[in-house]
Amino acid sequence: TAPYSLLVLPGDGIGPEVMAEVVKVVDWFQANRGMSFDVSHDLVGGSAYDTHGVPLADETMAKAQQVDAVLLGAVGGPKYDDLDFSLKPERGLLRLRKEMDLFANLRPAQCFDALADFSSLKREVVTGLDILIVRELTSGVYFGEPRGIHDDGNNPENEGGRVGINTQRYTSGEIRRVARSAFELAKRRGNKVCSMEKANVMESGILWREEVQWVHDNEYPDVELSHMYADNGAMQLVRNPRQFDVIVTDNLFGDLLSDAAAMLTGSLGMLPSASLGAPMENGRPKALYEPVHGSAPDIAGQGKANPIACILSFAMALRYSFDQGDAAAELERAVEKVLADGARTADLMGPEGGTPVSTSEMGDRIVAAL
Amino acid sequence: TAPYSLLVLPGDGIGPEVMAEVVKVVDWFQANRGMSFDVSHDLVGGSAYDTHGVPLADETMAKAQQVDAVLLGAVGGPKYDDLDFSLKPERGLLRLRKEMDLFANLRPAQCFDALADFSSLKREVVTGLDILIVRELTSGVYFGEPRGIHDDGNNPENEGGRVGINTQRYTSGEIRRVARSAFELAKRRGNKVCSMEKANVMESGILWREEVQWVHDNEYPDVELSHMYADNGAMQLVRNPRQFDVIVTDNLFGDLLSDAAAMLTGSLGMLPSASLGAPMENGRPKALYEPVHGSAPDIAGQGKANPIACILSFAMALRYSFDQGDAAAELERAVEKVLADGARTADLMGPEGGTPVSTSEMGDRIVAAL
Ligand SMILES: CC(C)[C@H](C(=O)O)[C@@H](O)C(=O)O
Ligand SMILES: CC(C)[C@H](C(=O)O)[C@@H](O)C(=O)O
Repeated sequence: TAPYSLLVLPGDGIGPEVMAEVVKVVDWFQANRGMSFDVSHDLVGGSAYDTHGVPLADETMAKAQQVDAVLLGAVGGPKYDDLDFSLKPERGLLRLRKEMDLFANLRPAQCFDALADFSSLKREVVTGLDILIVRELTSGVYFGEPRGIHDDGNNPENEGGRVGINTQRYTSGEIRRVARSAFELAKRRGNKVCSMEKANVMESGILWREEVQWVHDNEYPDVELSHMYADNGAMQLVRNPRQFDVIVTDNLFGDLLSDAAAMLTGSLGMLPSASLGAPMENGRPKALYEPVHGSAPDIAGQGKANPIACILSFAMALRYSFDQGDAAAELERAVEKVLADGARTADLMGPEGGTPVSTSEMGDRIVAAL
Repeated sequence: TAPYSLLVLPGDGIGPEVMAEVVKVVDWFQANRGMSFDVSHDLVGGSAYDTHGVPLADETMAKAQQVDAVLLGAVGGPKYDDLDFSLKPERGLLRLRKEMDLFANLRPAQCFDALADFSSLKREVVTGLDILIVRELTSGVYFGEPRGIHDDGNNPENEGGRVGINTQRYTSGEIRRVARSAFELAKRRGNKVCSMEKANVMESGILWREEVQWVHDNEYPDVELSHMYADNGAMQLVRNPRQFDVIVTDNLFGDLLSDAAAMLTGSLGMLPSASLGAPMENGRPKALYEPVHGSAPDIAGQGKANPIACILSFAMALRYSFDQGDAAAELERAVEKVLADGARTADLMGPEGGTPVSTSEMGDRIVAAL
């Protein structure tokens, strides 16, 4: 069979370090599981800006459109804080999401048993937690027009004289397609979807609620659907996160709620994500995989970063892009074994101790456990 | 001195029950502390709709504009779910906020020692927690135009054929005035403000950050100011909420973040809020006080509701509208004493027991403790 093509974009901060460990894992699957990967590397974010003067070069964008899956590390850093909006590292990532039309962002929030004590929540509230947030990723207030900052034409009532605008805009079609992703995923899990918006104050939230309900009634009547205002959602995630199975929500709410959910688990350095688009000609979805954590510039280059989130993102690639569910599970088990054996990167060192390991030692141990 | 004028709007669900207890407290201060209140009652939300066909009658709006302070219970309930957007109970509350121009919403998130074990967070993460969220309340995506749902003119790419739009719009002046409120409040507390937005993806967030910084540099250089992306803010609130003193943020982020913060404390039934506008002719700010919790229709009418949040909202009225800080503190101490003595409404009954009391018994005990 033709090799799977991967575009590796390590990005900034700890991105390159954690991605180096993923490459070891990719190599192991090539050597031992009869898979063949065609891997190319390129730049995104601040590192792309440093070289090309833009956070994502057109050639990189074109490559991303052609590969089976993009693996991304992380973008951003204080060095780039004063850059113009359109040149900031984040714009590289947003351009990939938008132009590849990766509308469904899958963010599992899972509490790893060995790490439950890292959560700021009580053990009994988070043990066994396993929810999946499906965040719409290519529309909403992140991309809506008009947007920008303009002068308020000497309006005497506006001290400061400027106006900042962004537009929250959703079409029914955009809502339906991500709702379908959520229902499909729920069928393979707990069969429950909770949709979150602010339909009590935003018309775009009313449309969201109605279209999700429409997809449910017409296509997935057997999946349990509920609706919740997003502020209550934020509360319920803190109060009792295990009440949820799959949560589907828009781009901006998904940004906040998935970060809160990730932090609940105490396993931020462990959480992967997948961003999926429509099927390509070969039947595989356009796809980008990245850890939930950021570029952590404060610890970059010190061997302190935890590569597991990035490695588990590759496991998601095996599952969602290459239909290699068994290989994905094998990789996930290897990670669990290494943790059970006590290996701990700096972020995982708690009172109960463990064996301190560096970023690359953690990668080596996972490969050894495979 | 002229009496303080109060407009009492009990609203829906448990609103009337908890407000009845506030009225007892108001009476006590009249009888015992030489204050004089001129109290009138009116309808808001679903109860206003039932009587007037609108969630806030024009006469009620006019009264609210004239009094020193509005005390509100809660609005909303399933009975009104199918009403047209413009008639929903929430619109009554939003009209009050907007037309009274109550731009600064103060939401303290405080962990009461006696209740720390109710939090889903570990005791050591929340003990002594005392943060104040200052949420912009009259602008942003709640009110921006254009807004609405419209037909997408047979756009073949839009399955479903509709578009939902809301507009996030902030002027520099709107940002500066709420920033000033936050800095003023911080000076009387821990002297630290953290401003939250998504300046990495939204231009309105860039304007927010720049204007808050401007107010700081020009008017409050001695208050410590930091900026944080709102998604990270949601994370940090879960990870280590005590790192914050005052948080200032926009209407929508404030809605989610303050609810999450409230839930952290485990004391949702205890948390008050104040919504303040510009000073009136008598020097007092336009003001509305309401509990953070909602109308809880499921327990309405059963004597199960906790009146403390609503009573503490009246304490905020004493402090912010009437400059009666001592009386406010006296009321707060009475609440603490009653809790320390073991009185517990249903929501506060934990494993360690206590004396179960009804809504009105709780009110009576607080009055007795005064
Ligand atoms: C880096 C940033 C643009 C991004 C977002 O806001 O979507 C990040 O917070 C995320 O959640 O992936
Ligand atoms: C009831 C609703 C309109 C309101 C809001 O969204 O502002 C509520 O959630 C709040 O936070 O006061």
